[in-house]
Amino acid sequence: MKYLFQNILGDFVLDNALDIVAEGKDVKKKYPHLKPLPEDKVAKALFSFKDQKYFDKFYQKNLELTKNAIKESVSADGLIIQTISNIIELERTCNLLTKRLREWYGLYFPELSKRVPDQERFIELVFHKSKKELMQDLKQPETMGADLTKEDVEEIILLAKQTHALIKLRYQHEKYLEKIMKKHCPNLLELAGVTIGAKLLELGKGLKHLAMLPASTIQLLGAEKALFRHLKTGSRSPKYGILLQHQLVQQAKPSLRGKMARMLADKISLCCRLDYFKGEFKAKEYWKELEGKL
Amino acid sequence: MKYLFQNILGDFVLDNALDIVAEGKDVKKKYPHLKPLPEDKVAKALFSFKDQKYFDKFYQKNLELTKNAIKESVSADGLIIQTISNIIELERTCNLLTKRLREWYGLYFPELSKRVPDQERFIELVFHKSKKELMQDLKQPETMGADLTKEDVEEIILLAKQTHALIKLRYQHEKYLEKIMKKHCPNLLELAGVTIGAKLLELGKGLKHLAMLPASTIQLLGAEKALFRHLKTGSRSPKYGILLQHQLVQQAKPSLRGKMARMLADKISLCCRLDYFKGEFKAKEYWKELEGKL
Repeated sequence: MKYLFQNILGDFVLDNALDIVAEGKDVKKKYPHLKPLPEDKVAKALFSFKDQKYFDKFYQKNLELTKNAIKESVSADGLIIQTISNIIELERTCNLLTKRLREWYGLYFPELSKRVPDQERFIELVFHKSKKELMQDLKQPETMGADLTKEDVEEIILLAKQTHALIKLRYQHEKYLEKIMKKHCPNLLELAGVTIGAKLLELGKGLKHLAMLPASTIQLLGAEKALFRHLKTGSRSPKYGILLQHQLVQQAKPSLRGKMARMLADKISLCCRLDYFKGEFKAKEYWKELEGKL
Repeated sequence: MKYLFQNILGDFVLDNALDIVAEGKDVKKKYPHLKPLPEDKVAKALFSFKDQKYFDKFYQKNLELTKNAIKESVSADGLIIQTISNIIELERTCNLLTKRLREWYGLYFPELSKRVPDQERFIELVFHKSKKELMQDLKQPETMGADLTKEDVEEIILLAKQTHALIKLRYQHEKYLEKIMKKHCPNLLELAGVTIGAKLLELGKGLKHLAMLPASTIQLLGAEKALFRHLKTGSRSPKYGILLQHQLVQQAKPSLRGKMARMLADKISLCCRLDYFKGEFKAKEYWKELEGKL
């Protein structure tokens, strides 16, 4: 009586005493009438693998499998999460640097900051136009700003250029994000939009996990602080987290926003499941349905 | 009897009844024997200026003077403070973005981050070399990182390029800062160095104010939190603020660092006064003196 025993090292043939008789890929051909090893004998059979030779092989094989598993664990989720995190980081950075730029440029031409509230336009004006041109364009005959040397102004313009480049990078990241999301989670992208969709993926730790979450949890993603305050102190429970930023919730009457957020979370949850299980594209229908309820 | 009365609008000639007889720049020539208006008559003379005509003139003149005062208040101090604030901002930003870069690139080639702890070198490697080249250079035959598409990698490289540009901007700012400090406060620059010197100017709200501070306050600039904790709870008083980062304090034995910080603050205070009152260049002597005490 010979038994077939399989483990991560491959196929083995054991005899009645459970010693190893043969191993390798082709043992099944050599011994056509093998029986699989009965379960109650497995523990005993493992004693035959106590040899150092097998131990090293197991070690190598395990390492290899683990490395591959790690390699394959990087899915679109990982890329999306990194990208959205970086977009958030860049947004914060650009705001800080623009504030600094306004203050610094204010030594030179303080009137501009008030006249141009838009961040991007302000930056572009600073590095595309001279103070003289700006004063003409804005019909500002005089300024309280100091007359700085060319060298001093040059330094401010360098900052403006870098800040501008960072803003451009953010837009580039957003385009890229939309592209990978279109492949990975088209329904979520359509219904939630790029930014909110990606933030949900980040908060929900990836599409798989997000698809498993109940809709009520999705509704509150991003409102963790208010939720725990509610649980701890009994203050009113939050009605929405990040979903508050969604167009449909914004368009709803303030008193109905909680309701809208709940319905939206329902549909987003469905979208995540559709995307995770590679289902059809239904997000547009959902959107219309929700819009009808406004 | 005619009087000469001067105010911000210019020179005026008043008669005995204190009415205005003439005004303008050349009144002194026309009336060579004017007496200055006695002080006890000034209050009365002002009634003659109650006319709307003068009111408007005063308003205009005041506005002009104020604007000019603002214009001239932008000194090297302002530029130095803006530059050092921006350098600190950029430093923080670069650290954040590099951390993000390491994490993101870690999906692709996680082994690199551990092998290259230096921030700048890491960034340069990421955008100058391909994964293949890096694996060869580092003699790393295999990696646990995923095989990303060219598009995915491109996005990471863009981030590396931007971060690199920000680091370069920081260096540029530092060079510029040294240049203006060399003109504005050569003693402080020599003794405290660019970064600490500029930070002291920021914390001390400009050279003038810094020159007026007692040395003991300079010693504790940057340790406000510990100082107020000391005052409030009676914990031990701080020995140094930002001066801890200074080379001379760093080189002293830990038990003598407080002493060194005190002596250094003394000399820095002297340097500020020398610089503010345009005194001689003595910082090198001070440095040697302090070094001798180590």
